[in-house]
Amino acid sequence: MNQDKIVIAHGGGGELSSRLIKEEILTRFGESPLKGLPDAASLTLNSSQILFSTDSFVVSPIEFPGGNIGDLAVHGTVNDISVAGGQAKYLSLSLILEEGLSIPLLRKVLDSIQEAAQFCNVKIVTGDTKVVGHGECDKIYINTAGIGEKYPNFNLSKTLLEEDDAILVSGNIGDHGMAVLTVREELPIKNGTKSDSASVHRLVKAAHPYGEAVRFMRDPTRGGVAAVLNEIISESQLGISLDESSIPINRKTRNVAEMLGIDLLNVACEGRMILICDKKSAKSILQAWQKLPEGKNAQIIGSLVADSPGKVKIKTFTGGSRVVSVPRGELLPRIC
Amino acid sequence: MNQDKIVIAHGGGGELSSRLIKEEILTRFGESPLKGLPDAASLTLNSSQILFSTDSFVVSPIEFPGGNIGDLAVHGTVNDISVAGGQAKYLSLSLILEEGLSIPLLRKVLDSIQEAAQFCNVKIVTGDTKVVGHGECDKIYINTAGIGEKYPNFNLSKTLLEEDDAILVSGNIGDHGMAVLTVREELPIKNGTKSDSASVHRLVKAAHPYGEAVRFMRDPTRGGVAAVLNEIISESQLGISLDESSIPINRKTRNVAEMLGIDLLNVACEGRMILICDKKSAKSILQAWQKLPEGKNAQIIGSLVADSPGKVKIKTFTGGSRVVSVPRGELLPRIC
Repeated sequence: MNQDKIVIAHGGGGELSSRLIKEEILTRFGESPLKGLPDAASLTLNSSQILFSTDSFVVSPIEFPGGNIGDLAVHGTVNDISVAGGQAKYLSLSLILEEGLSIPLLRKVLDSIQEAAQFCNVKIVTGDTKVVGHGECDKIYINTAGIGEKYPNFNLSKTLLEEDDAILVSGNIGDHGMAVLTVREELPIKNGTKSDSASVHRLVKAAHPYGEAVRFMRDPTRGGVAAVLNEIISESQLGISLDESSIPINRKTRNVAEMLGIDLLNVACEGRMILICDKKSAKSILQAWQKLPEGKNAQIIGSLVADSPGKVKIKTFTGGSRVVSVPRGELLPRIC
Repeated sequence: MNQDKIVIAHGGGGELSSRLIKEEILTRFGESPLKGLPDAASLTLNSSQILFSTDSFVVSPIEFPGGNIGDLAVHGTVNDISVAGGQAKYLSLSLILEEGLSIPLLRKVLDSIQEAAQFCNVKIVTGDTKVVGHGECDKIYINTAGIGEKYPNFNLSKTLLEEDDAILVSGNIGDHGMAVLTVREELPIKNGTKSDSASVHRLVKAAHPYGEAVRFMRDPTRGGVAAVLNEIISESQLGISLDESSIPINRKTRNVAEMLGIDLLNVACEGRMILICDKKSAKSILQAWQKLPEGKNAQIIGSLVADSPGKVKIKTFTGGSRVVSVPRGELLPRIC
């Protein structure tokens, strides 16, 4: 890397993040399940297969409309294991607390963790608590690591992607990022957008009967839908074609985004998932999702195409077409 | 808790730490393997047994004589799994980086992680990187979580402790805490003490042929040997008698500690372990340890006794006796 100092964009999920990971992490640890950077590592232990994943959470502010850092920390790791085709079973919980943190606020965060873990059917089984001085962290940072079991029938692999495969999204996009931004920037918006912080474990369970037709699942967090879709076809002979009119977006979220000039395709969700499957199974999965409260706004938003390999294009409302790229800098720091 | 704000001592490994965990964590998550607060959770997954543990590292400064935050983060979690009677196999690695962190320094830390992981025979298999603004963390915080397999023959349980059981320590105590303190406080000490940051996995492997005689193993980190020994007999009908003259201490470390009036029994080690076993096997384990470089200073430092139940006492150099208690406040913040 040319720079000699870490900048905010190194953590943003865009190009600089990806270079940091490639040049500094994969060069050292890439000869392991890390290679390919799956959402969760697939490991053999005592000759059985398990999934393992981790995330640290540094969201600011720690409370936002629709959630707080506690439920976010549970959902984030449960979702990584879910989209790797698994069922999360156990979580670790590691807290870094700032001296002076309000204990009632800590209790509120822990209550949210407890509630989210119950809903996701995971047990908090091990943990750690550190305290740092005032000004050495921003209230509370949380790390969770999770262990899960694989569903037997998902057949996830980028190499299986084919022309005409369908791209599904499980709900409105960009709500989490915009909710955090609204409250952090103290935007004067009444009844604004709420975070989508939620678990996708039931969506994955609903899709698993069609698992053999599913090629790819991911929760579009940092970098949003744009980053996920660009990553998947970056080295492919195929391209992606999206239809703007089919992308589910909450009206309030759209208003805020338009006001600020932000493209919601770049904004993080924390309770949505992208799924790519054989065209023939797409409607069945869509219908299964739409029966769940967290999938009621699910849509088929596009497909894999043979033209424009390696590129994501979108047909706009006005009938035009544009390329959807990955943001270079850091659009929304500390949203998770 | 009476306080309504987090103070540094909530993370110190002493009484306030233990109350925070009991009152806020165990009340919410205690109906799980967390109950009893083992070093690593013992879990059933796909009907086989695994060990799972986590630690966050916030040591200041991040480089100290004998190590840095990187090898510390590997050793800490490997050691938790080791003293739970297991062999660590896989680690997650989650970084929180401060904006402005020197990338050459980050590389040095990552190199130490790689080297320590190789020595410990663990693979880094999953990870996460977050960046926070300048002043929102202190250079770098690291979380590792680890998964391991159990050795079949350890028979660890506090309920098996018996009178005359021997207490072993694998090497000089307090080196890590004093090394960090010396450099942090810029004490004018030449050729001062070096951290003991190291893995105990080979010590556990050396003890495992005698596993059925081993009742307890732990690495004395925050709170030091005093905290570990007090915790183990706090609800017991037995007490502990230590012999000060048998406790291995580096001369330089002793000098610094005496100068500062610090009791090394309260100071963290990051590469030592305490083991309690049947008296009959103590010498065999001691000899096995002393054959390893990391065990060359190992000693039998005391035993379980029937008098003074629930208390740790020490026979001093001068022939007296005193109670060794757990520090109430925070002696040495941010040593791990």
